[in-house]
Amino acid sequence: MGQLIHFSICPFSRTARLLLAEYGIDASLAEEKPWEWRAPFLAVNPGGNLPVLLLDNAAICGITPITEYLFETNPFAADNVVPELYPEEPLAKAETRRMSDWFHQKFHAEVWSYLAYERIENPFVHRHPPNPEAIRAAMANMHNHMAYLSRLLEERYWIGGDYMSMADLAAAAHLSCLDFLGDITWEKAPLVKNWYARIKSRPSFRPILKDSFPGIVPPAHYTNLDF
Amino acid sequence: MGQLIHFSICPFSRTARLLLAEYGIDASLAEEKPWEWRAPFLAVNPGGNLPVLLLDNAAICGITPITEYLFETNPFAADNVVPELYPEEPLAKAETRRMSDWFHQKFHAEVWSYLAYERIENPFVHRHPPNPEAIRAAMANMHNHMAYLSRLLEERYWIGGDYMSMADLAAAAHLSCLDFLGDITWEKAPLVKNWYARIKSRPSFRPILKDSFPGIVPPAHYTNLDF
Repeated sequence: MGQLIHFSICPFSRTARLLLAEYGIDASLAEEKPWEWRAPFLAVNPGGNLPVLLLDNAAICGITPITEYLFETNPFAADNVVPELYPEEPLAKAETRRMSDWFHQKFHAEVWSYLAYERIENPFVHRHPPNPEAIRAAMANMHNHMAYLSRLLEERYWIGGDYMSMADLAAAAHLSCLDFLGDITWEKAPLVKNWYARIKSRPSFRPILKDSFPGIVPPAHYTNLDF
Repeated sequence: MGQLIHFSICPFSRTARLLLAEYGIDASLAEEKPWEWRAPFLAVNPGGNLPVLLLDNAAICGITPITEYLFETNPFAADNVVPELYPEEPLAKAETRRMSDWFHQKFHAEVWSYLAYERIENPFVHRHPPNPEAIRAAMANMHNHMAYLSRLLEERYWIGGDYMSMADLAAAAHLSCLDFLGDITWEKAPLVKNWYARIKSRPSFRPILKDSFPGIVPPAHYTNLDF
């Protein structure tokens, strides 16, 4: 089914790849570097954000439209072969969406947007040294997010509730990007580590853990399923 | 139906109010100042973002979860009494979601987040003079957004397509906040002005145009339906 335009170290793109893999939907991948703002890409998606799902007759732009579209149209959703990543019950579904948005919006704005710029774009694209103040602010914010996730996981087995859902894919996609950069001290958040080990060992995660970026060496535990 | 926790000059809150009004759903309003981070509010919504829809048995946090929840559960949606704010066809719905997200994420990040801070929070809460550089950057970004909307409205009558949709409510909510601050030069974007006049004259808009904020006087055209 179509092609996913993505970037390997982009949490929104990774969420879409996890979703497609969990649903057993085969889409080819085309990588787009988000800082290049290439005209042919902007012609497809004027917003310039990733990912984009290219279908025969349309382009679906952005992680939320892609997620909702796949749930509305995925022919596999009616079977019980694939995990039901959105609960049926509307309030439970709203909680899944709250926690997906938590990562796609709040975590992104307070943590990832800084780290992506300072650890990837600034040093490797603009060849500027990273701004240590921005990194410190992002890391301080990250500790607050990890503390919230730890409290949440005292009460529930998965991020969105009692069952694995879209919220887990979103959370794992975002944390996997930070982990790639070596920015997570897992020992400080054992409940989050335990949850991440569970989701990281799913087959949908394997291709993501193989991604690389020239000049960045992920920590040894990054690809280790029993880290 | 429940209570909406909102802030009067918040585009996400205004989107929810327009949606509730268009659907004929009666919810009481409770105002929350987003910069206060009050503990009782954070106990309801740990993310601290607005709006929140309080139901008897749950709190639905954030504009996207609220929007999708209302579409999934609204008992009026099956009638033809209320406008169908999401098209039935999945690709058309994806386009509606793309343009809603455009405002809730891209426009917010590039324009409103700066203006809200520099024109409201900085002068009226922290009693600091606004940063003219941040305002200039936001205004430059806004011109790009207005140019994109103008191109879009050459091809379609509404923001999301041929019919009024959720995307129009989101766009109008965001632009109405800028207009309240007097930051839009409508004469430069006649197609956008024409569209805004159409949506602004809907009954759902009336309560919003009555909002005030101590110390800010909106321009004369703000409440004028034939501006």
